[in-house]
Amino acid sequence: MSASRYTYLGPAGTFTEAALRTLPEAATRELVPMVSVPAALDAVRAGEAAGALVPIENSVEGGITTTLDELAAGGHLMIYREVLLPIAFALLARPGTELSDVKTVTGHPAAQAQVRKWLGQHLPEAVWESAASNADGARLVQEGRYDAAFAGEFAAATYGLTPLVTDIHDAQNAATRFVLVGKPARPAARTGADKTSVVLWLRENHPGALLELLQEFAGRGVSMMRIESRPTGEGIGQYCFSVDCEGHITDRRVGEVLMGLKRICQDVRFLGSYPRADEVVAEVRPETDDDAFLAASDWLTRCLDGRA
Amino acid sequence: MSASRYTYLGPAGTFTEAALRTLPEAATRELVPMVSVPAALDAVRAGEAAGALVPIENSVEGGITTTLDELAAGGHLMIYREVLLPIAFALLARPGTELSDVKTVTGHPAAQAQVRKWLGQHLPEAVWESAASNADGARLVQEGRYDAAFAGEFAAATYGLTPLVTDIHDAQNAATRFVLVGKPARPAARTGADKTSVVLWLRENHPGALLELLQEFAGRGVSMMRIESRPTGEGIGQYCFSVDCEGHITDRRVGEVLMGLKRICQDVRFLGSYPRADEVVAEVRPETDDDAFLAASDWLTRCLDGRA
Amino acid sequence: MSASRYTYLGPAGTFTEAALRTLPEAATRELVPMVSVPAALDAVRAGEAAGALVPIENSVEGGITTTLDELAAGGHLMIYREVLLPIAFALLARPGTELSDVKTVTGHPAAQAQVRKWLGQHLPEAVWESAASNADGARLVQEGRYDAAFAGEFAAATYGLTPLVTDIHDAQNAATRFVLVGKPARPAARTGADKTSVVLWLRENHPGALLELLQEFAGRGVSMMRIESRPTGEGIGQYCFSVDCEGHITDRRVGEVLMGLKRICQDVRFLGSYPRADEVVAEVRPETDDDAFLAASDWLTRCLDGRA
Amino acid sequence: MSASRYTYLGPAGTFTEAALRTLPEAATRELVPMVSVPAALDAVRAGEAAGALVPIENSVEGGITTTLDELAAGGHLMIYREVLLPIAFALLARPGTELSDVKTVTGHPAAQAQVRKWLGQHLPEAVWESAASNADGARLVQEGRYDAAFAGEFAAATYGLTPLVTDIHDAQNAATRFVLVGKPARPAARTGADKTSVVLWLRENHPGALLELLQEFAGRGVSMMRIESRPTGEGIGQYCFSVDCEGHITDRRVGEVLMGLKRICQDVRFLGSYPRADEVVAEVRPETDDDAFLAASDWLTRCLDGRA
Repeated sequence: MSASRYTYLGPAGTFTEAALRTLPEAATRELVPMVSVPAALDAVRAGEAAGALVPIENSVEGGITTTLDELAAGGHLMIYREVLLPIAFALLARPGTELSDVKTVTGHPAAQAQVRKWLGQHLPEAVWESAASNADGARLVQEGRYDAAFAGEFAAATYGLTPLVTDIHDAQNAATRFVLVGKPARPAARTGADKTSVVLWLRENHPGALLELLQEFAGRGVSMMRIESRPTGEGIGQYCFSVDCEGHITDRRVGEVLMGLKRICQDVRFLGSYPRADEVVAEVRPETDDDAFLAASDWLTRCLDGRA
Repeated sequence: MSASRYTYLGPAGTFTEAALRTLPEAATRELVPMVSVPAALDAVRAGEAAGALVPIENSVEGGITTTLDELAAGGHLMIYREVLLPIAFALLARPGTELSDVKTVTGHPAAQAQVRKWLGQHLPEAVWESAASNADGARLVQEGRYDAAFAGEFAAATYGLTPLVTDIHDAQNAATRFVLVGKPARPAARTGADKTSVVLWLRENHPGALLELLQEFAGRGVSMMRIESRPTGEGIGQYCFSVDCEGHITDRRVGEVLMGLKRICQDVRFLGSYPRADEVVAEVRPETDDDAFLAASDWLTRCLDGRA
Repeated sequence: MSASRYTYLGPAGTFTEAALRTLPEAATRELVPMVSVPAALDAVRAGEAAGALVPIENSVEGGITTTLDELAAGGHLMIYREVLLPIAFALLARPGTELSDVKTVTGHPAAQAQVRKWLGQHLPEAVWESAASNADGARLVQEGRYDAAFAGEFAAATYGLTPLVTDIHDAQNAATRFVLVGKPARPAARTGADKTSVVLWLRENHPGALLELLQEFAGRGVSMMRIESRPTGEGIGQYCFSVDCEGHITDRRVGEVLMGLKRICQDVRFLGSYPRADEVVAEVRPETDDDAFLAASDWLTRCLDGRA
Repeated sequence: MSASRYTYLGPAGTFTEAALRTLPEAATRELVPMVSVPAALDAVRAGEAAGALVPIENSVEGGITTTLDELAAGGHLMIYREVLLPIAFALLARPGTELSDVKTVTGHPAAQAQVRKWLGQHLPEAVWESAASNADGARLVQEGRYDAAFAGEFAAATYGLTPLVTDIHDAQNAATRFVLVGKPARPAARTGADKTSVVLWLRENHPGALLELLQEFAGRGVSMMRIESRPTGEGIGQYCFSVDCEGHITDRRVGEVLMGLKRICQDVRFLGSYPRADEVVAEVRPETDDDAFLAASDWLTRCLDGRA
C-alpha cells in the first residue's frame, strides 16, 4: 500500500507538487500533500509512504533549513532523485479582474522575496499580506479576501482563478531544488552525471579542521557543489556541514573521498548518490578517473608481490 | 538627533530588546522597535538611527538569513558590537492561571523549536498556535485569546502576566547572537579578544577555490569561527560566504588574511572587527603574532639593504 | 652459489665492510669487496650476488649521489635492510709512532671533512694528502708513505697499525646510513618500526606539483623522513625526488600514499619497505591507523549496500 | 685592489673559467684560479677578491654540494649573477694523434659521467684514468702520460693540443650552472626575469613542516625552481633546504614569501635575487602581481579608515 504513495510538502497546487509531477513515476503513485517537511518525511520513516518530495535549496532564499536539519539529525533517510524547478510566478485573480484593480496581494513570504522588484515596478501601491503557502493565498483570493495571489500558473485552475501576468521572477535563473527522499537502501544507479550528498561532523574545532575536510575532496579532484554549515544545537559555534559533491559513490574517486571523510570526521551521514537534475557530466582529471585508481591498485599489488 | 537613536527588531518585549538593553550606551539612547530586520537596518542607512541591533545567529535555528543577506548585499553597513544572549523562555499566563489550566499556548515559531521537548513532557495535550513574535504572543494571552505564551521573562511586566515556569530551553547552551550595526566607519577599537567579519565572493568555481580561501586563514594561524554559504541570487550553485574569524583587523595576521582574500576573491566586503561577546582571547602561535610579522618585515628591509 | 655471496663497496677494511658485518647473516656469506657502488650493484643485477651493501647517506656529506642515481635510474633493485653506523675515526700509525711524530696524514676526502676540526686542534701543522679510500690510506701508512691514516679502528689489525687516538669525529651524531640491496621481490616483513623508499617523477612542473606530492603524505599522516631532488639528466631544472617515509607498504596509510603517488606522478619506483635501523616506532594518529582505514572501508561497503 | 679581482674554481682552462669569461666585466678584472670552491669563496670573505665564480649545479651530477654547503653554513655571501654553460667536451690530443691511436683517456671524474656512452660507442677499448681536473688531464696529455683528454675545446690552445672530436655529451641539454658570489650587499637590480635563492632551516620536524614551507610559495603563486635537502651535520635526518624560486625580492609576491618563510622557519639565509641566465620571464597570475598586492594593501588601509 505505502509503496504506491509519495508524500510532499503541501498543500496541493504549490511548486512542490509541480516538481513532483515532473517525475515519470509520479503518474502511478498516490500523491499526498503534508502540512510540513517533517510530516512528509515522518510518513516515510513510519513506512506509510515510499518517498517524500521536499524542497532543499532555493536560489534566492538559500538552503531550506528544516529539510537540511531533518536529513542531518532526524531518523536516517536517503536521497534518490533531485528535481530542479525554475521558479516563475503568475499573478492570479478572480475572472474579470484587471491589473489596475489590484490593491491587495498575497502569497508565501518566500514568494514575496522573489517578486519584490516586480511589485515595486508594476503595483507600487499594492499592499502585501502573507499567506501560509502560495496555494493558500490563491484560496484566499478565491474567497475574495485579497485581490490577487502570487503562485504557480498551474494553481489557477484549482482555485478558479485567471493569470493576470505570468513568468514573474526578480532574479534571473531563479530555481528551487527538490529532493525525493526514501528509507536507506542501495543508492540510485550511476548515470555518469551524478551527485553525492553527505553530512559531516568535525572531530575537533582546530584552525585547520575544515581545511582538512576540503582537502579530502580537492586532493582527489572531486568538485564540491554546495557546503552549508548548520548548528548542531549544542551552542553557538558548534556546526555540522551539509555537502554535495559531483560524482557517484561507485566512482572510485568519490568512494575514496567518503572513506577519507569517515576517517577524519567524528561522524559522516551518507545521504545518497543520485542523478544530477542538470545532467552535467563533470570533467574528471585523468589522474583521478577510475582507470587511474585501478592502475594504482594493480601496481600496489605488484609491489607487494615483488613484481613492480 | 539620530545619533541618540538605536533601532532594533521589534516589537518591544522580545529577546532583541533584552539584548540591546545589555549594552551600557542603550541607557542613554532612544530605542525604537522596527517591524523587520531590513526596516531596522534601513533606518541606519537613511541616517535616521545611529545603530541597529539585529539577531544574526541562533544556536538552534542557525544563521538568520535575512540579516546575513542584508549585510552581504544591501547598502554597506558595519558591525561594531555583538551580544550573546542565553535563550531561556518563561511560560507567561494571566495571574491566577495554574499550569494544569493551560490548554492553548503560543509564541514565535522559533520559540516552538526550542521548547518542543519541554512541551511534550509537561503539557503534552496543549495546542500550539504561532504568533508573529513572542511579544505578540504575550499580548494575545493578555487579551485572553490563548492560555499561555512562551516569551522572555522580562516580557511579563509589560503585558501584566505572571511567569508560571522560567528557564525553559530544550537545548543546553541555547543562545542567540545579535550584532549592533552602523554606517561604515573606523572599526571598533582592538581589545585583544576580538572577532572580524567578512563576506567573500569567489572569483571562479574551480574544485580548489574554497580550499584556497580557507588556506589564507589557516596558513596564518587565524581560526575561522563561522562560515556560511549564502546564495548570490544568480542561480542554484552560486554562493557567497559569510565568515567570522578570531582577531582584529589591526592584528597583523588578520590584516594579512584580509589582503590575501582581497587578492584571490572577486570581492570582499569588510563587515568590521569588534569585541567578542564571549571575551575569549584566542591563542596565537608565536610565528603568527605581531612580533613575528614585525621581525619578518624588518628582516626583509635588511635584505633589501644588504644588511641581513 | 650467488645466493651465498654479498658484495659491498670496498676495499676491505672500510666502514662499509664494518656495516655489513653488523648483519647476522653476513657471518654465513661470502663478502666480496667491489671497486665502486655501480660494480657492487651490477653484480646483484647479473645474479652473481644475492645482495649488495652500499652507503646511501652520510650525516655530514649528505646523500651518496652515485647510490641514489643507481637506485633511481639503473636496473630496478630493492632495499631490504638498512644499517646505521656511527662514524668515528681512529688515527692509525705504525707501531712506535708518537702523536708528536705525525707530520703527514691521509684518508678518504670524506674523512677529511669529518676530522678537520680535530686536526686543527691536535695536529695543526700536519699535511693532509687524500687517498682513494680510508683502507687505502692505511695501506700507504703501512708502506711508510705517510705517518698516519684516519680510518675505522677495525682497520688497524689488517694493516699492522696501532691506533694513536680513537673516537675522532668533529660532528656529534655523525653517522653513515647503508642499505642492503637485492633484486625486486616481496618487501621485507613488517616489524612495526619500518621505513619505505620510493623515487618519484613529477608529471608536470607547475608551481604546486611538489606540494601535491607532499600532500599525499601529509593528508594521511605519513611522516616524510628524507627528500632529495636529483637531476633526471634531461637539463637544468628537471628533477626526480628520492623519498623515505615512515611505515611499511602493508600499513594501509602507506599503501594509500603509494597509490596516490602512483596516480599523480609520471612514474613511481618502489624501492622497498624495510626495518628502520633506529627501531623507532612512529606515532600514528588514530584516524590514520589500520583500524581507521578498515572501519572506513566497511562503512563504504555498508553505504553501497544500503545498510549504513 | 681586491675590487679588480675575481677568483674562480681553477685551474685555468676549465669550464669554470670559460663561464667566467662570458661575463662582460670579466674583461677588466684580474681572474685568479683557486684550488677549491672554499678557497675561492674565502678570498671573497677575506676581502682579497670582489667576487668568486663557482659551479653550483650540474644537470647530470646534481647540486655541487661543496658550494651549497659553503653558501649555507659558511660566512654569509650572496649571489649576484648566474651563468648557464652548455657542457660539451672536446677530446684533445697531441698534434698528429689519430682517434684510432687513443688507448688511454683522462679527465675529471665528472667528465667521465658525461661521456661514458660516447666512449662505449667510439673508444670501447680505451682505458680511463681520472685527473684532478679537466685542465690537469690536458696537461698530462701534453706531458705524454695519456693519449687524450676530455676537456673544453677552449683548453686546446693552452696546452698545445688538437681537438680530435668536439661537442661530445651523452645527455641532451647537459649544462652546468655557475654563480658569481660576493659579500652581502644590496641585491642585483630587478630585470623582470629574476631568480631568488634562500637556505631554510625548519623549526620542527613534524609531518607537515615541509608542506607548510612549500605552501608559502604556492599560496602566492611563486614557482619553486629547485629544492635540495642538505644535512645540517647534526645527525641523520636533520636537513636544511636550499631553494631557488622565480622572481625578485622587490616583487611583492616574493617579498611576502620571504617574510612568510622568515616567520615559520627557525632560520632563513637570503642568498640574493639576480637575473636568470635563461632570461625566461615567469608567468605571474593576476592575483599575485604587484598591482594585486598594492590594491589589497590600499583596500586594507581604507578598511582601517572606515572608507572601504
